[in-house]
Amino acid sequence: TLQTPYYLLDKSVLLRNLEKISYLRQTSGVKCVLALKAFATWSVFDLMAEHMDGTTSSSLYEVKLGREKFGGETHAYSVAWADHEIDEAIAACDKIIFNSVSQFERYAQKAEAQNKKIGLRLNPGISHSHFLLADPARPFSRLGEWDMDRVTPVLDRISGVMFHFNCENDEYESLDTLLKAIEERYGEILHKLEWVSLGGGIRFTNENYPIDTLAKRLKDMSERYGIQLYLEPGEASVTKSTTLEVTVLDTVFNGKNVAIVDSSTEAHMLDLLTYSEYTSVAPNTGPHTYIVCGKTCLAGDIFGEFQFEHELKAGDRIAFLDAGGYTMVKKNWFNGVQMPSIAVRHLDGQVELVKEFTFEDYAQSLS
Amino acid sequence: TLQTPYYLLDKSVLLRNLEKISYLRQTSGVKCVLALKAFATWSVFDLMAEHMDGTTSSSLYEVKLGREKFGGETHAYSVAWADHEIDEAIAACDKIIFNSVSQFERYAQKAEAQNKKIGLRLNPGISHSHFLLADPARPFSRLGEWDMDRVTPVLDRISGVMFHFNCENDEYESLDTLLKAIEERYGEILHKLEWVSLGGGIRFTNENYPIDTLAKRLKDMSERYGIQLYLEPGEASVTKSTTLEVTVLDTVFNGKNVAIVDSSTEAHMLDLLTYSEYTSVAPNTGPHTYIVCGKTCLAGDIFGEFQFEHELKAGDRIAFLDAGGYTMVKKNWFNGVQMPSIAVRHLDGQVELVKEFTFEDYAQSLS
Repeated sequence: TLQTPYYLLDKSVLLRNLEKISYLRQTSGVKCVLALKAFATWSVFDLMAEHMDGTTSSSLYEVKLGREKFGGETHAYSVAWADHEIDEAIAACDKIIFNSVSQFERYAQKAEAQNKKIGLRLNPGISHSHFLLADPARPFSRLGEWDMDRVTPVLDRISGVMFHFNCENDEYESLDTLLKAIEERYGEILHKLEWVSLGGGIRFTNENYPIDTLAKRLKDMSERYGIQLYLEPGEASVTKSTTLEVTVLDTVFNGKNVAIVDSSTEAHMLDLLTYSEYTSVAPNTGPHTYIVCGKTCLAGDIFGEFQFEHELKAGDRIAFLDAGGYTMVKKNWFNGVQMPSIAVRHLDGQVELVKEFTFEDYAQSLS
Repeated sequence: TLQTPYYLLDKSVLLRNLEKISYLRQTSGVKCVLALKAFATWSVFDLMAEHMDGTTSSSLYEVKLGREKFGGETHAYSVAWADHEIDEAIAACDKIIFNSVSQFERYAQKAEAQNKKIGLRLNPGISHSHFLLADPARPFSRLGEWDMDRVTPVLDRISGVMFHFNCENDEYESLDTLLKAIEERYGEILHKLEWVSLGGGIRFTNENYPIDTLAKRLKDMSERYGIQLYLEPGEASVTKSTTLEVTVLDTVFNGKNVAIVDSSTEAHMLDLLTYSEYTSVAPNTGPHTYIVCGKTCLAGDIFGEFQFEHELKAGDRIAFLDAGGYTMVKKNWFNGVQMPSIAVRHLDGQVELVKEFTFEDYAQSLS
């Protein structure tokens, strides 16, 4: 058995998501590129690449990782490119998507010289997001061009646009309403484009999501404007595929029962801290209630309050569910807490340890 | 000139803090151990070790780093130790401080067998903290023993206790009030102990902090109970010593002027995101107002809204102040954004690049 903590990625669950992605691609004609910002554990990219068209990125390093480890179409997007990285980004990508007209003006000629397709991110000023922090249409958002007077003059030099306007959107009706507004506002220019990316944040791999309705909607939209549509699933690609496996190290009672485990929200599942959310466990039933906490110095390092069938004691194992998206990509060495290993359960059931972190890795993260 | 982003640690400012720490040690008799959870950039440990007594820790890896790179007294504290790491922690430390009586009961015998001093963390149920998230006395806190009925039976096997009850406390009166309450509640047991750590979070290196008053207060307390007092400065050791040096990559106007720089709050100054705070710049004057944002996909990746003398343009440099504590220890690869290098300005003014991070480091952070 492996030493906790470790992320355990179950390829059979991953495959279920990927098969839904394939189904959507086949029935709608949409292309799906993995958003590496959510998930970049490249040891399973071979399986993912069989069901997805490529990757999209938020930085030069993600562009390079996508090109080297995933293949297929490599979309290079970044909120802002730097002079010293733009050549490498253009060389490694198939399309480059600029966040602003000023970035376009600074670098488009270099992309044209390499015959790379060029896109521009537009901000439609509308969105579906549960958090202001993550809302791309928040006031004064820097994410994409809002002003069509600035966009129109460069339209003939771009082949497509990207809208990213959903965060954890699991409501088809909401997506449909937003799409209608986008079509109404941008319909005229969509006709002139080759491709449009609708970004990520659409939870179409969830159970009960009306995937056929989505497929038809996207197919109709593609045909209406004569465009190749893209989606950029990140979390949706890996949802429910990964657990964070931890061990109880101590239990204390301070008015409530508290169990302390060998992990940390801030270091290993950062979004729980950022968005003040709890993770989940299964079955989460039984008469024993515990606040399950991490082992960092942070007073609020809390994974959640859960039910257990038995009293917890040191040595007991807990699996935190749905730890695939936005976890491994932002893990860090806070408090010097052991960084979780990464393990993969292959389709034949065999578990393979694919990554371990050592004291030397911790020491070398500083200087 | 170095490629941004990079943390720039100015040893001459660091030395100013260290000299205050030395002054406090000399005038009060208190010992000061560096809290590695806040700052663990070991390339300046040689200078720090001249002015501090050693280190304290939150994990096995911090214990080892303190022992190997800093020397002096090595305090081993962790919210919870694991069976597989306890022997190594005990071997590497001078004192081991348990967070609960149950951890004490599980491991004390091992420490006794190695003749290591043993301490226990007590939670006095009072604190100075601006944030519930960081408040060690928050309801149901797992940080330290609350129940003296559990502590009393093991008192004869410990030589000291640790209280950590301050977070960013720059008010001497508040500290004094809390100390009085602690002395009142625990006075009887303090007499029986060899040492007491008052933890970290006291900002006594700030300008205008009444350091002589603090020194006298601590000296009196030591003498009253016949104990060696410890403080555990983390942030206080490095305050104002470090900037995060960044470059403007793009400017956009969406109702306000926004400048996008080659860094990220979440990835490089995480506490700004966690505590919804802005960093600072100097002089922060002039007629031009900009929201300064990072380059990640996160809509709320905002360093602050600042004043500038001139319009900002791509290529301009900005230095974010006070980026030493709780930054480098929690930096991460979110979005694959270039991790800042670490540079040190030596006392002779020479700037040395002590750490760079590469694409290979990014790729190897995953698997």
